[in-house]
Amino acid sequence: MAMRRPAIGVFDSGFGGLTVLKELIGHSLDADYLYFGDTARLPYGSKSTETVSRFALGACQYLEDRGAQLLVIACNTATALALGQISAAAHVPVVGVIEPGAECAAAASRSRKVVVLATEATVSSHAYQKALAARGIEAREKACPLLVPLVEEGWVDHPITEQVAQIYVDQAFGERNEADVLLLGCTHYPLLKPLLRRIAPRDVTLVDSAESAATAVRKKLKLDPLPRLSEAERRSIPRLNFFATDSVEKFRRLGAMFLCHRIDHVEHVDLKE
Amino acid sequence: MAMRRPAIGVFDSGFGGLTVLKELIGHSLDADYLYFGDTARLPYGSKSTETVSRFALGACQYLEDRGAQLLVIACNTATALALGQISAAAHVPVVGVIEPGAECAAAASRSRKVVVLATEATVSSHAYQKALAARGIEAREKACPLLVPLVEEGWVDHPITEQVAQIYVDQAFGERNEADVLLLGCTHYPLLKPLLRRIAPRDVTLVDSAESAATAVRKKLKLDPLPRLSEAERRSIPRLNFFATDSVEKFRRLGAMFLCHRIDHVEHVDLKE
Repeated sequence: MAMRRPAIGVFDSGFGGLTVLKELIGHSLDADYLYFGDTARLPYGSKSTETVSRFALGACQYLEDRGAQLLVIACNTATALALGQISAAAHVPVVGVIEPGAECAAAASRSRKVVVLATEATVSSHAYQKALAARGIEAREKACPLLVPLVEEGWVDHPITEQVAQIYVDQAFGERNEADVLLLGCTHYPLLKPLLRRIAPRDVTLVDSAESAATAVRKKLKLDPLPRLSEAERRSIPRLNFFATDSVEKFRRLGAMFLCHRIDHVEHVDLKE
Repeated sequence: MAMRRPAIGVFDSGFGGLTVLKELIGHSLDADYLYFGDTARLPYGSKSTETVSRFALGACQYLEDRGAQLLVIACNTATALALGQISAAAHVPVVGVIEPGAECAAAASRSRKVVVLATEATVSSHAYQKALAARGIEAREKACPLLVPLVEEGWVDHPITEQVAQIYVDQAFGERNEADVLLLGCTHYPLLKPLLRRIAPRDVTLVDSAESAATAVRKKLKLDPLPRLSEAERRSIPRLNFFATDSVEKFRRLGAMFLCHRIDHVEHVDLKE
């Protein structure tokens, strides 16, 4: 059997993780990518720990079966609720989005106070709060359940989205605004960066967990590299493989917006629970 | 074995179908209710026909196994995409929400023009358009993907929701406004009735598919009644049984808003696909 080409598996409940994939591709990591979007069961952000863990474990197993030699959990909710279980079950290294995001936020904050915007499930888990507390940072977490549907509606720069985001940001920063970092704890939010930049208090640094995760993967691969490629193989890197549990047509259409690149082929996957 | 008490099974992807259950209870139908919310996999509104059919068939089978003698598909998306398949697979009568809604809208319209607000999947199926065309009514369908998350955020009377609904309603009615009925083609929308009443063009009649479905069930049971109850049994009618595939705590909390009544016990169900 031919040696398998090195592949990184990227998992998300839907499309948001494509912002992480986009950042990974930008780092030219000498690997192919397998992207799994569990679009039949999205969103995870409003679901319970048990349900999210069960869904995530199945998807990660699938990615390993398809040859992933490193798993990136490009979904804040799945990282928050199930990273421990995924890492315990996996036979390859696993990188989540929370620790890298917290690391970058801690490095960027002088006031030692950070505001985190995320989904309901991520906030309920207090995963960012814990990761930031371990770095001596006080976090104020704010659940923003409307931002994902607004992004998926394509209203990334719409006045309604601006008002909704303003309500969330005002509530998160409160009156005594001492936080100097706004951490985007959901992989849908990078699409709202220009808008959030506009409405966030001045002098606040935006930290994006998609970017941070890609940087963490690059660092991890420096220490523990994937198999080397021949020159011939390198010329065809990266091949992108997409898997989705719901409509592949919709994945192509909506996915292109997140990846900022056309998506040609998507394979439909039926996960038996 | 004791005779089973008559039971009506009500199925929805989540909480919206509770607006149908609420209307059914209002009709005093001499039956218990089994309500199934597929909350682990909601929303259906943005998913494909194959996925929705598969999910709905499993849930309806479950309700039959638990003793449902009539099935109400209290989910517009599942009715639009899978009513035929559900009816073919079921061993008991099945009532959807689309035909009753179209029937009421047709009865209410003088201009023979109706606007339908619904989810993306319901609109893509054109199920309302077809059902209305069969009654000589011209339908303009409008997908409103943000209304469900806004309702679930609890913003049923919020200025943001009003602006979003106004955008949708304006787009749906257009400039040459001849429609005289606004059909609410999603079981979440009854919670927005006061707001929609306020912003819809004057002289437009609101028709709610939850109410229409409950009326259709009552009519069906007049023709084909469930087993009679003893006087003793009638005194304990209706018992309500709730089943959910995601967190039961969340179901109790959010469900109470839709049912306008406290929900005490919810049983967690794991559907193997």
